[in-house]
Amino acid sequence: MGIPVGVVGATGYTGVELLRLLLGHPEVDVAVVTSRSEAGRPVPEIFPSLRGHTDLCYSNPDPAALAGCRVVFFATPNGTAMHQVPSLLEAGVKVIDLSADFRIRDAAVWKQWYGQEHASPKLLARAVYGLPELHRDRIAKSDLVANPGCYATAVALALLPLLRAGAIETHGVIADAKSGVSGAGRKAELETLYGETSESFRAYKAGGHRHLPEMRQTLRDVAGVDIDLTFVPHLVPMVRGIHATVYATLTKGSDAREVFTRFYAREPFVDVMPPGTHPDTRSVRGTNVCRIALHAPGGNRLVVLSVIDNLVKGAAGQAIQNLNLMLGLPETTGISAAAVVP
Amino acid sequence: MGIPVGVVGATGYTGVELLRLLLGHPEVDVAVVTSRSEAGRPVPEIFPSLRGHTDLCYSNPDPAALAGCRVVFFATPNGTAMHQVPSLLEAGVKVIDLSADFRIRDAAVWKQWYGQEHASPKLLARAVYGLPELHRDRIAKSDLVANPGCYATAVALALLPLLRAGAIETHGVIADAKSGVSGAGRKAELETLYGETSESFRAYKAGGHRHLPEMRQTLRDVAGVDIDLTFVPHLVPMVRGIHATVYATLTKGSDAREVFTRFYAREPFVDVMPPGTHPDTRSVRGTNVCRIALHAPGGNRLVVLSVIDNLVKGAAGQAIQNLNLMLGLPETTGISAAAVVP
Amino acid sequence: MGIPVGVVGATGYTGVELLRLLLGHPEVDVAVVTSRSEAGRPVPEIFPSLRGHTDLCYSNPDPAALAGCRVVFFATPNGTAMHQVPSLLEAGVKVIDLSADFRIRDAAVWKQWYGQEHASPKLLARAVYGLPELHRDRIAKSDLVANPGCYATAVALALLPLLRAGAIETHGVIADAKSGVSGAGRKAELETLYGETSESFRAYKAGGHRHLPEMRQTLRDVAGVDIDLTFVPHLVPMVRGIHATVYATLTKGSDAREVFTRFYAREPFVDVMPPGTHPDTRSVRGTNVCRIALHAPGGNRLVVLSVIDNLVKGAAGQAIQNLNLMLGLPETTGISAAAVVP
Amino acid sequence: MGIPVGVVGATGYTGVELLRLLLGHPEVDVAVVTSRSEAGRPVPEIFPSLRGHTDLCYSNPDPAALAGCRVVFFATPNGTAMHQVPSLLEAGVKVIDLSADFRIRDAAVWKQWYGQEHASPKLLARAVYGLPELHRDRIAKSDLVANPGCYATAVALALLPLLRAGAIETHGVIADAKSGVSGAGRKAELETLYGETSESFRAYKAGGHRHLPEMRQTLRDVAGVDIDLTFVPHLVPMVRGIHATVYATLTKGSDAREVFTRFYAREPFVDVMPPGTHPDTRSVRGTNVCRIALHAPGGNRLVVLSVIDNLVKGAAGQAIQNLNLMLGLPETTGISAAAVVP
Repeated sequence: MGIPVGVVGATGYTGVELLRLLLGHPEVDVAVVTSRSEAGRPVPEIFPSLRGHTDLCYSNPDPAALAGCRVVFFATPNGTAMHQVPSLLEAGVKVIDLSADFRIRDAAVWKQWYGQEHASPKLLARAVYGLPELHRDRIAKSDLVANPGCYATAVALALLPLLRAGAIETHGVIADAKSGVSGAGRKAELETLYGETSESFRAYKAGGHRHLPEMRQTLRDVAGVDIDLTFVPHLVPMVRGIHATVYATLTKGSDAREVFTRFYAREPFVDVMPPGTHPDTRSVRGTNVCRIALHAPGGNRLVVLSVIDNLVKGAAGQAIQNLNLMLGLPETTGISAAAVVP
Repeated sequence: MGIPVGVVGATGYTGVELLRLLLGHPEVDVAVVTSRSEAGRPVPEIFPSLRGHTDLCYSNPDPAALAGCRVVFFATPNGTAMHQVPSLLEAGVKVIDLSADFRIRDAAVWKQWYGQEHASPKLLARAVYGLPELHRDRIAKSDLVANPGCYATAVALALLPLLRAGAIETHGVIADAKSGVSGAGRKAELETLYGETSESFRAYKAGGHRHLPEMRQTLRDVAGVDIDLTFVPHLVPMVRGIHATVYATLTKGSDAREVFTRFYAREPFVDVMPPGTHPDTRSVRGTNVCRIALHAPGGNRLVVLSVIDNLVKGAAGQAIQNLNLMLGLPETTGISAAAVVP
Repeated sequence: MGIPVGVVGATGYTGVELLRLLLGHPEVDVAVVTSRSEAGRPVPEIFPSLRGHTDLCYSNPDPAALAGCRVVFFATPNGTAMHQVPSLLEAGVKVIDLSADFRIRDAAVWKQWYGQEHASPKLLARAVYGLPELHRDRIAKSDLVANPGCYATAVALALLPLLRAGAIETHGVIADAKSGVSGAGRKAELETLYGETSESFRAYKAGGHRHLPEMRQTLRDVAGVDIDLTFVPHLVPMVRGIHATVYATLTKGSDAREVFTRFYAREPFVDVMPPGTHPDTRSVRGTNVCRIALHAPGGNRLVVLSVIDNLVKGAAGQAIQNLNLMLGLPETTGISAAAVVP
Repeated sequence: MGIPVGVVGATGYTGVELLRLLLGHPEVDVAVVTSRSEAGRPVPEIFPSLRGHTDLCYSNPDPAALAGCRVVFFATPNGTAMHQVPSLLEAGVKVIDLSADFRIRDAAVWKQWYGQEHASPKLLARAVYGLPELHRDRIAKSDLVANPGCYATAVALALLPLLRAGAIETHGVIADAKSGVSGAGRKAELETLYGETSESFRAYKAGGHRHLPEMRQTLRDVAGVDIDLTFVPHLVPMVRGIHATVYATLTKGSDAREVFTRFYAREPFVDVMPPGTHPDTRSVRGTNVCRIALHAPGGNRLVVLSVIDNLVKGAAGQAIQNLNLMLGLPETTGISAAAVVP
């Protein structure tokens, strides 16, 4: 018997990806999977790809059942976890929240972007932002981890080393990001139909996206000052993958490649690629890896290319990485398989 | 009998698109279609979508046959047209070159980016850069038009009004562009196989792309000074479409929307969209339209979203638009159909 | 001023395709476009691809406004037209119904497959099944045309010549059909999300699909006897296109190629391809063409490959073809453009 | 140190998939990877998805190096393995050939379909056809396994139980099969470009495909008589996956479901799905599973839906399954991960 874990809200894309990874994880057992809409149905009935891997059935959320888990993941829509987390923490359960509920430390900023009052503002200071490359030690000691957003992860990993080293100007930073359609979730909506998204490309929310305050908070934590960041997300006709193209201005004398290779030298999931290369999103599909390449097209302009799988390093995989840290397991446990390519 | 026109090198994607548009054009007749590799074969044998629309056969390039045309299009690889154009011009034939041979006025710059000596440097000054929104009158009087590159068209249309009005700073301009795979042409190459490009996204040539000097030349022509432009192209898993996301800094007091609506007020093929919208590439698929939307995410930052069909406004359609201008026909003749959506 | 026509329910994929074709049709004017959900909104706000092509607004269905049209198209869900058609016919309006309401002559069969009582059973005998290759003369004289289903069109065109000529056995006929996702309509549903349909292929309704009784009725009309037909539809990760692969057993001495070329000799929209070829769906994308190829892999086995665009020859294009017939216009008016390929 | 294995020709899609699976296999070590074209280059330079998983370099084929392996896989074009296998067998190396060289026992038939004289006809009788569900015991004892073709695997698994049980007629069997584009390999060819295959669907080789004689041989082995099989392959715009839709006529009193559940009761990689379901190819993507569903649309007609990943159960995964059998390892070793969905 492995360590018992639970998943709340496991019928979306993040949820099923979490299940796939947890079912293949050698140290844990999925004890509870909740879903109000699918309660009573076997998981593989909803996700036939899991036939033969589990006989679990979805159940209605039951505090007692969840309290029997060592760790509970929330893969719920924003605004759900903040109501249920307090009692779980009291019961001694560790929580990894994949929604946005605990990512922003300032409850007023959270309310502004998510359109509702925060239900557990006191927990905001307790929650650790679950980006291991930044907060590994704090995550290991935490019982409440706010798993980062997908765009925020791709952009933060492209900028952290530079800001830490003071290697770029703090103004005029641009993150032009592109995401596969699974980032919009598994919801019955017109705009993510195959007929609406295939063979087309567009930007969205160019005036402001919810991951922006999250990025700004992280970057300010590292830089010590506000970063003038412009972020425009785009929708790519593919299922998985985020590609962030980040533009910044190098400070005089800075060596971006040296900064990145040093910062990520011991990181198991960040791969700084050789000069002249361009990472493709498929090379990280299904994996927890972030691949980064650097280009200097002229002057002091720096271009950082950063790719992740939005459902893995951008969600479920990073959650497992955090789980491993919180449980004292080797950090790569259960998330080390290579990408299926092509 | 319509006006006789010829197409040199009509087996690529630009070529077949040119044929599709010319065969539906009410004022011209395609008299000659050349291809060394397919000489003797009926066009619809290579492109079954043209069955029922033409019985033309490919022929070997024959100067006499081409000289019988009023206008000849070159849809050939770079470095071909520059050898054949001089004799056609002497024969009184008008030429529209869809390759890059006559786009750059400086033969040294051309050589640097295209890797060979230019064969007709004297014609470079005679060639008119075929962007009607910039050079309509000169195109109408020209007998040699250099049809713009696809990326260059999308980016130029996003910046011309701003530079003409002095509404943006000339430094720190960034063009993050995304193209469908057809932009790479119809060539047997590994990297554009379905298995290599589907379900993936990546940048390429982030260190420098051939359309960059072309863009810089156009922007300098308008602004009167060099523009500090960074251009990074990306490959999107779709067939057609270019989306340029252009970032610039507004000068004090500038009203971008006013600048665009005024500049493009009478343009038949540039559509400035309402505030808050985002153009998708499919809305211009198969059409000669460029759709543009403006966003101001904060501070003096301006984001311009510009979409075209790379094979139409970015190639064959713009060539027809130039043809119409050169022949004194209504500018929209033969290129006014709506996009097939979805 | 052209002939006034109306479209009821023009917010789905069939509806917007109908609008695209009608707006480009030289003899008609779209006078009314109804939609309860979008009443008051300009059409191009929902479909930006029509920007510049129309300023029409959706309106609530108004019997008087529709009665002012010469022809009204229904692009509504099944079960809607049957309620509204009677009063329009009384008002002297011709009707082309793109839904299934008037396709099946037997009200009991209709009820069995569509799950409700038919509201206008008396009109079933009056309605003409709008397959011009079969009922051209009757369509021309009709005021109520039941536009065929997409699968039914592709399969019928693959079998009509053979059954008419008695060239195949009437048992053991198999239609293995594949459709793009747009066939499922523009509805907010989980199973046609990009994330659910991209990079995957599957059959559906293998136990029985609504187009089966429609096919059987048509085939029986031609053959004079019931045809033992098995029909299995599949979902292809593409937007448009239907490919029917039809398997039949040739009767002794039959020459399938001769049968097809003779039957379709004068058809403007059926293209019998040369021996050894395979039609691809993209060659008919956006067009009203059905391309057919024949293969004889051995013995007396015949394989018929039949492709159409499900939204054009399978819906809106065929409706325009019927419109042209009903109005005495040249049959190809407004639907003769070549496919946009690639 | 694990068991040393080698891969000849590992730059195609089958090759890289084999490498991915072998690098994750706990009992083997990849000792040699050969490629004439890429000799000297690190594997991850060609396939960045393997960065961090191996430092192997491609080498020129060297008989001595290969002779040091316990098992050598051939992932070479047809006609290569047959020249190199004899010396390896003499050196005591076990061989798994993923090409077609040893699949057909009759050298004359092989020549007819592959267009060349077989170089090692004497080995044809020694080779075991590597379909574990049919020849598990013989594979375990063999030193030369002919790994089945992808289509042949999907079709054989759909028919074996029925033919073994005499549950279907042996005439009028139809296999309408659909494959993702990766089945065509990683070769620079026009017809598998993204621009040629995306958003389109077509049949190919409807007059006869190389997997047909292979299927016929397998089916005859099971049924004891020739099977009248018609096979038409189609190309699906997706990377991976085969879907075979097989039509047959049930013999009187046969219970197809009972036949399948019994036949595959203990098979680790064949999943007979519940009534009323339809397997999708993505549910087996990257896995060695074949999912099968049965439908009886009427009369004595049986429809079998069979899906595999063409590169896994249709190639590399089945090769690993055979490796496990040949080495006496648990059959699922290294090939038990769940599919990455979506």
